Amino acid sequence: MEIKVMKSVLNESQNKADEIRKLLKEKNVKMINLVSSPGSGKTTLLEKTLEHLKDKYNIAVIEGDCATDRDAQRLKKYNIPIVLINTEGGCYLPSISIEKAINEFDLTDLDIIFIENVGNLVCPAHFDVGENVKVAILSVTEGDDKPGKYPLLFREAAVVILNKIDLLQYTNFNKDNFYNDLKKVNSKIKSIEISFINEEGLNNWFEWLDDFLNN
Amino acid sequence: MEIKVMKSVLNESQNKADEIRKLLKEKNVKMINLVSSPGSGKTTLLEKTLEHLKDKYNIAVIEGDCATDRDAQRLKKYNIPIVLINTEGGCYLPSISIEKAINEFDLTDLDIIFIENVGNLVCPAHFDVGENVKVAILSVTEGDDKPGKYPLLFREAAVVILNKIDLLQYTNFNKDNFYNDLKKVNSKIKSIEISFINEEGLNNWFEWLDDFLNN
Repeated sequence: MEIKVMKSVLNESQNKADEIRKLLKEKNVKMINLVSSPGSGKTTLLEKTLEHLKDKYNIAVIEGDCATDRDAQRLKKYNIPIVLINTEGGCYLPSISIEKAINEFDLTDLDIIFIENVGNLVCPAHFDVGENVKVAILSVTEGDDKPGKYPLLFREAAVVILNKIDLLQYTNFNKDNFYNDLKKVNSKIKSIEISFINEEGLNNWFEWLDDFLNN
Repeated sequence: MEIKVMKSVLNESQNKADEIRKLLKEKNVKMINLVSSPGSGKTTLLEKTLEHLKDKYNIAVIEGDCATDRDAQRLKKYNIPIVLINTEGGCYLPSISIEKAINEFDLTDLDIIFIENVGNLVCPAHFDVGENVKVAILSVTEGDDKPGKYPLLFREAAVVILNKIDLLQYTNFNKDNFYNDLKKVNSKIKSIEISFINEEGLNNWFEWLDDFLNN
């Protein structure tokens, strides 16, 4: 009975996703869905990305949060369009909410929409919300065994950002184990190692974004 | 419509929870539900707890995982009863699965059952599975803003373990901010700071467990 419910939600979600994708394609807007556990670095990635790219591209953000407007507040200083979806405890952003958020933007003026999903490695991976790609973020402090243990996100994502690489030396994270595990789940995924502390690897992310936006 | 579905699941879950709690009380078995994001330290906490307490108490473990049996394999060496529930992508352990798992144990011989829930700060907090207490685990690398942003778990938990305290100096985690945030969500929650690297704080956890089991 629970599975039936899940499927019905998934189907409904899929339908909206196709409509959203069609609309964004018409308007020439790309959409990236950032998915990770809480505290893996989604908001900081957005801060760094907006700092670097806001003069080059027109960017909007859809912020998903279970409670509070803290992440949206952190992004206010970039003076870009932001819609906050407060899920009130809900574990993912459904496509119906994404559609409403998109309707708040003037799509003619936009190049890219970033979705910062609810902090959760499990549920958001199940839902297509009309994005062009999902980007998974995992920090080394979360452990090298995560692709195998939470395979759906790593299977669905086009890119995985391995974050907090500056903390590698203080953890038992084994990069070989991680990449072997990842490859078994998704042999085509692009991976980028990043540290926000020393800005290591950020250029690789910006380069990937440039390629993605211009192809 | 989605909200209605959620409530129906919650109600069904609640009913089983009461039955489970009644059964465990009759058999004088306590049950602790460990909830955290992936990689916050649930399995390592169990390893340390089993090492320390397995000669003093009769312990069983219910392992919840989206995929793989890796966590259950890590606990095999303690030679205790373990039931693995593979949710196949599901984001929490429902009480109906907990009931099935409990039926696999000989309750007459048990003092305590630990549930290691699916790694997820959101969904498992919604579900009462008949446990006596939920224990939340958060590592400092996840950020000091989490109690306010993911309030349900911190509201439902009797104890919060603040883990990876050895990494504090390498992060921007502010303990005052964390405890202020936590207090607003749950003024009665017990907090214990822990590091598995230098074993800091583990005795406080074992003392809390002793008190809990004997009262």
